[in-house]
Amino acid sequence: MVPTVEWKDGMVRILDQSRLPEQVTFLDCKDYQTVARAIQELRVRGAPAIGVTAAMGVALGAQSLTMTSYEEFAKAVRGICDHLAATRPTAVNLFWAIERMKTTLVGLRGHPVSEIKRRLVEESQRILDEDIAMNKEIGRHGATLIRDGQNILTHCNAGALATAGYGTALGVVRAAWEQGKKIRVLADETRPVLQGARLTVWELMQDHIPVTLITDNMAGALMRQGQVQLCLVGADRIAANGDVANKIGTYSVAVLAKAHGIPFYVAAPHSTIDLATPSGDQIPIEQRKPQEVTSIFGSQPVAPIGAEVLNPAFDVTPAEYITAIITEQGVFKPSELAERFRR
Amino acid sequence: MVPTVEWKDGMVRILDQSRLPEQVTFLDCKDYQTVARAIQELRVRGAPAIGVTAAMGVALGAQSLTMTSYEEFAKAVRGICDHLAATRPTAVNLFWAIERMKTTLVGLRGHPVSEIKRRLVEESQRILDEDIAMNKEIGRHGATLIRDGQNILTHCNAGALATAGYGTALGVVRAAWEQGKKIRVLADETRPVLQGARLTVWELMQDHIPVTLITDNMAGALMRQGQVQLCLVGADRIAANGDVANKIGTYSVAVLAKAHGIPFYVAAPHSTIDLATPSGDQIPIEQRKPQEVTSIFGSQPVAPIGAEVLNPAFDVTPAEYITAIITEQGVFKPSELAERFRR
Repeated sequence: MVPTVEWKDGMVRILDQSRLPEQVTFLDCKDYQTVARAIQELRVRGAPAIGVTAAMGVALGAQSLTMTSYEEFAKAVRGICDHLAATRPTAVNLFWAIERMKTTLVGLRGHPVSEIKRRLVEESQRILDEDIAMNKEIGRHGATLIRDGQNILTHCNAGALATAGYGTALGVVRAAWEQGKKIRVLADETRPVLQGARLTVWELMQDHIPVTLITDNMAGALMRQGQVQLCLVGADRIAANGDVANKIGTYSVAVLAKAHGIPFYVAAPHSTIDLATPSGDQIPIEQRKPQEVTSIFGSQPVAPIGAEVLNPAFDVTPAEYITAIITEQGVFKPSELAERFRR
Repeated sequence: MVPTVEWKDGMVRILDQSRLPEQVTFLDCKDYQTVARAIQELRVRGAPAIGVTAAMGVALGAQSLTMTSYEEFAKAVRGICDHLAATRPTAVNLFWAIERMKTTLVGLRGHPVSEIKRRLVEESQRILDEDIAMNKEIGRHGATLIRDGQNILTHCNAGALATAGYGTALGVVRAAWEQGKKIRVLADETRPVLQGARLTVWELMQDHIPVTLITDNMAGALMRQGQVQLCLVGADRIAANGDVANKIGTYSVAVLAKAHGIPFYVAAPHSTIDLATPSGDQIPIEQRKPQEVTSIFGSQPVAPIGAEVLNPAFDVTPAEYITAIITEQGVFKPSELAERFRR
């Protein structure tokens, strides 16, 4: 797999996911504003991936600062952090990663600015490396839940492309596949931005893991026919009570899974768990522009001009619909999270 | 509204729905093969509309026959009927309308072929006129179920465009609107062919009935938020036990509605009820080509080349999920159909 994001030659190189699968192109960001725009425009997306990207954006922004006083430098870095934090509201990994960069900054007070600049790059690289390592652990824990011959329904893309690499939900799929389990992924296309059709199908095909593309509205009928043994999705934010915000449509899949007695798993690193948010009701849900629904890729119209549209990017699945949450530290019931991950 | 289909200057004129809403164009069919192709290619769609169109196709085909012997003429007409019946397998109105044309043919045995030709055109026009009249009755009965201020979720297009005019599910909406009830339709876009986005939104906007477009995967989240008071869909075939085949995704909506305590209604004329099919399990489900899913309108690709795809055009909603079925003869529980409509 090509890397989702990387630090390269003093720039942040982002795989432009908005052009996949037709074109594999990279965006070389020379300043943090370009990184922020890439996050906003979904050129990079997926909660863990935007966390890593934002951290690299902070490091990139810091490099261009010319002041030598710590106070002035730190103030400017905090401004960069604020700019990057304002890109998207729902995924908590974004804020988590930026917070970690701020903590690094504070911890280096008194050190020369030139050293802090270098250490911020190192910290962002560490966040990236840890993300891949956590995903492999998520895969290891989650693979125990998957049996040979199962069909796994997934929604959106919680794969290598949604992370620094390997993936969360698709990390579990990869681990099961690497263990020799004969499985198949049923990939919801995931309207409006089609992350399932464009990204999940693409990355699984690259790894030769069997995958069948379906429209979002087929999930129920396939469950009724016994063609789905397991649902497995990622998360953008998990509240303290185990409620999960994830791509719009996740909640429908969870309700359908429950109605058919099919287990519904969420895979996410601990950076997705937000104990400061008591329940899903407090998670801010991003509303995106109508054009994502009324046209495909901003060019091919699919609805009348002037049509009224709703376009929430996420929904909340209450904990009661979630069989278990797969983390790098093990598999937990939603109700166990607060105890397990409290600071 | 422009007519979905009409007999005009010795031709069958079909509104080309595959190009809506961008272009309002008509297909003037000079032979029954063109009519059959239009049905297959979804230029005209919706169970009642394809019934009417097929009947006109039979009448059109009959006009071009040159034989004068009844037996030879009748044999050729039956061949035309078989050709038109092979276009699509799920909607029973197609077979019902063709059967009615055959019955007319048999009833006119002994009459001059020139007279039979004329009478076949008249019969197809009668089927069209009756369809509109039935839809108005469906609207009248169904409107009693809708209260002022309600949001009505619909899937696919069961509107004027799916019928000879006025619509079944949207006929109910129209009737309630004409009664002055302030309602709003939430229209599932209905992937892959986007009949909701392209047709339902378009025809409701033309009539100034409030409509909001959503992607199919938003329905559950909106139900949870209390934004849906009623679900209302059409049908392609209703089995004797009240199971309903309708556009793929209907079953998911029904399961979600039940989980949220929201009534789920089906609106259809008696020609959609197929007492010869005991249950939904016996309804043949059309599988359509993968390209409908992997590209938009056959031009804009949305998935990797070579992706495996499932594309069932319909699903079956078991009777237990259906609050009531609205017909031109009144509103019935699914379990009452067999008794009410037996021949």
